[in-house]
Amino acid sequence: MRLQEIGEFGLIRMLTAAQSAGEGVVRGVGDDAAVLQPSPGWQLLAACDMMVEGVHFSRALTDPFDLGWKLLAVNLSDIAAMAGRPRWGLIGLGIPNDAEPASMHKIYAGVNELAAVYGVAITGGDTVKAPCLFLSLTMLGEVPAGRAVYRSGARPGDYVVVTGCLGSSAAGLQLLLRAVEVPAALRERMISAHLRPNPRVREAEMLAASLGIGAMLDISDGLAGDLGHLCRESGVGAEIWPERIPIDPDLPLLAELLGQSVGDFSLFGGEDYELLLAVPPTAVAKLPELAERLKLPLTVIGQCTAAAGVIELVEGNRRRVLERGGYDHFGK
Amino acid sequence: MRLQEIGEFGLIRMLTAAQSAGEGVVRGVGDDAAVLQPSPGWQLLAACDMMVEGVHFSRALTDPFDLGWKLLAVNLSDIAAMAGRPRWGLIGLGIPNDAEPASMHKIYAGVNELAAVYGVAITGGDTVKAPCLFLSLTMLGEVPAGRAVYRSGARPGDYVVVTGCLGSSAAGLQLLLRAVEVPAALRERMISAHLRPNPRVREAEMLAASLGIGAMLDISDGLAGDLGHLCRESGVGAEIWPERIPIDPDLPLLAELLGQSVGDFSLFGGEDYELLLAVPPTAVAKLPELAERLKLPLTVIGQCTAAAGVIELVEGNRRRVLERGGYDHFGK
Repeated sequence: MRLQEIGEFGLIRMLTAAQSAGEGVVRGVGDDAAVLQPSPGWQLLAACDMMVEGVHFSRALTDPFDLGWKLLAVNLSDIAAMAGRPRWGLIGLGIPNDAEPASMHKIYAGVNELAAVYGVAITGGDTVKAPCLFLSLTMLGEVPAGRAVYRSGARPGDYVVVTGCLGSSAAGLQLLLRAVEVPAALRERMISAHLRPNPRVREAEMLAASLGIGAMLDISDGLAGDLGHLCRESGVGAEIWPERIPIDPDLPLLAELLGQSVGDFSLFGGEDYELLLAVPPTAVAKLPELAERLKLPLTVIGQCTAAAGVIELVEGNRRRVLERGGYDHFGK
Repeated sequence: MRLQEIGEFGLIRMLTAAQSAGEGVVRGVGDDAAVLQPSPGWQLLAACDMMVEGVHFSRALTDPFDLGWKLLAVNLSDIAAMAGRPRWGLIGLGIPNDAEPASMHKIYAGVNELAAVYGVAITGGDTVKAPCLFLSLTMLGEVPAGRAVYRSGARPGDYVVVTGCLGSSAAGLQLLLRAVEVPAALRERMISAHLRPNPRVREAEMLAASLGIGAMLDISDGLAGDLGHLCRESGVGAEIWPERIPIDPDLPLLAELLGQSVGDFSLFGGEDYELLLAVPPTAVAKLPELAERLKLPLTVIGQCTAAAGVIELVEGNRRRVLERGGYDHFGK
């Protein structure tokens, strides 16, 4: 079956058939706009992330289900980074003529599977013809009034903490792109980190409630780049202890096989969608117990300083200023 | 100045510099998500419309300012069609390498000029590299709880009413695409209807408050197509009196010059962004006074029937069933 045969409205019916009404959805797909019921006493969160064929993914290398999963995951991660609860999503799809409706359906299946985990309802969007496949998702969430966690509240002396381990997603991307022999289990673990990231939604809410976090964001551009955002918005600097950055135990081996350094992945590799937090010194003692409860590593990797905008890597007596930033869409 | 020189974050700073904080914006551009303050006792509306180069517009024929204006206008129109008030927008931009930052800036200027008219704040979004230029806007609005007007509430006997005049946008598009000699003032009026539609935001709110409207939507796919949506969602049919459909007084002449029928434009031409309403018989007498107050034609063009899904054109004793639908993105 091809797009021309089922038409735009047939496609929309097919794609949205599986979408349940969902909590807080007064009216979902099918009218000029969705009607949603906000929670009294909560504020609204809104974020939008897009993925474009040939820029963010290759159709040849990516299962459409994974594409849908990741589209939602990266947007859930933005809501998580504000300590919010994701609620409702709107999907925009640009569809080339050669796309199969079955593939589009699989994209939605990927979105819907992850949406169900977090009680998120897909309540509308737009599908249009386009020269290339692109996906846009606007995620709406909620946060108790005044409880959103920004990038701007870090203070000198706060500890820099990350969740999970870093660099696996970037290593997984290299394994997708290059012919390198690695053990199957390792390959799968890394590629899965790239294609099916787990947004830290519940973890972020619990960390914010427990720690009095100064600042939080998700690591999408890479640790170096996102730490740069945190420092700039908070007017602080940071010293980072590279050997403390949590990585997959097999990342050093893999980096060697790929002819790159571990830091290429752990410092500059993007799309891990782990959280980066500035935790006040008084709250750091709570980290081990929280890590236990969340079943998620929470690692202190450095400390905020008063040297606004300066990020230094400190190893023993060696200090060097971190120059390279994260991924820039239009950079040279 | 080219994109490579200013980079992604430079571009975002440039594009968002003009955006004011706006009412209900706790935190706008610059964090993982915007934080917005919903109005107590109101429900949230959310719609998303996209525009793609080569499908919805040609860069050669469209000033970037107009592109931004129209991007917002079509989304405002969706909120209007629910009888809601537009509040906040998120913009997604896919930008090809050959695009000039100055053009992207002009797109935002067009968005911002129209946004200011309605007190709408642009509170975030995403900019990515892409093979073609595309624009996505998610519009959030509010409506007093329980007061949204759907497509589904029309009843047999309700009158079919449209605002403004129909077909001008489609005629304007033809004037952009084809070399036809027409008087300058007419040309400009038609092209402006296509490039800078005026969403009926305040009009829709007042009509909904005054008329007890059964169903409402905006005319984006063309009268025939959108009336089909209304009939399907409401489980009614309609008879339409073609000679009553309001058109620009010069449309017949223009249609002749273009070698097409008036109905090609007024029935099947899309993108007028006027409103289509089902008005109960008891409220029809209020239309003339409302038209006067709104300085906008409100025209009865037909009546809803019990013959579910059947739309007939009735001229004198002649009745014929309307077969052709509106614009289908993937249709043959």
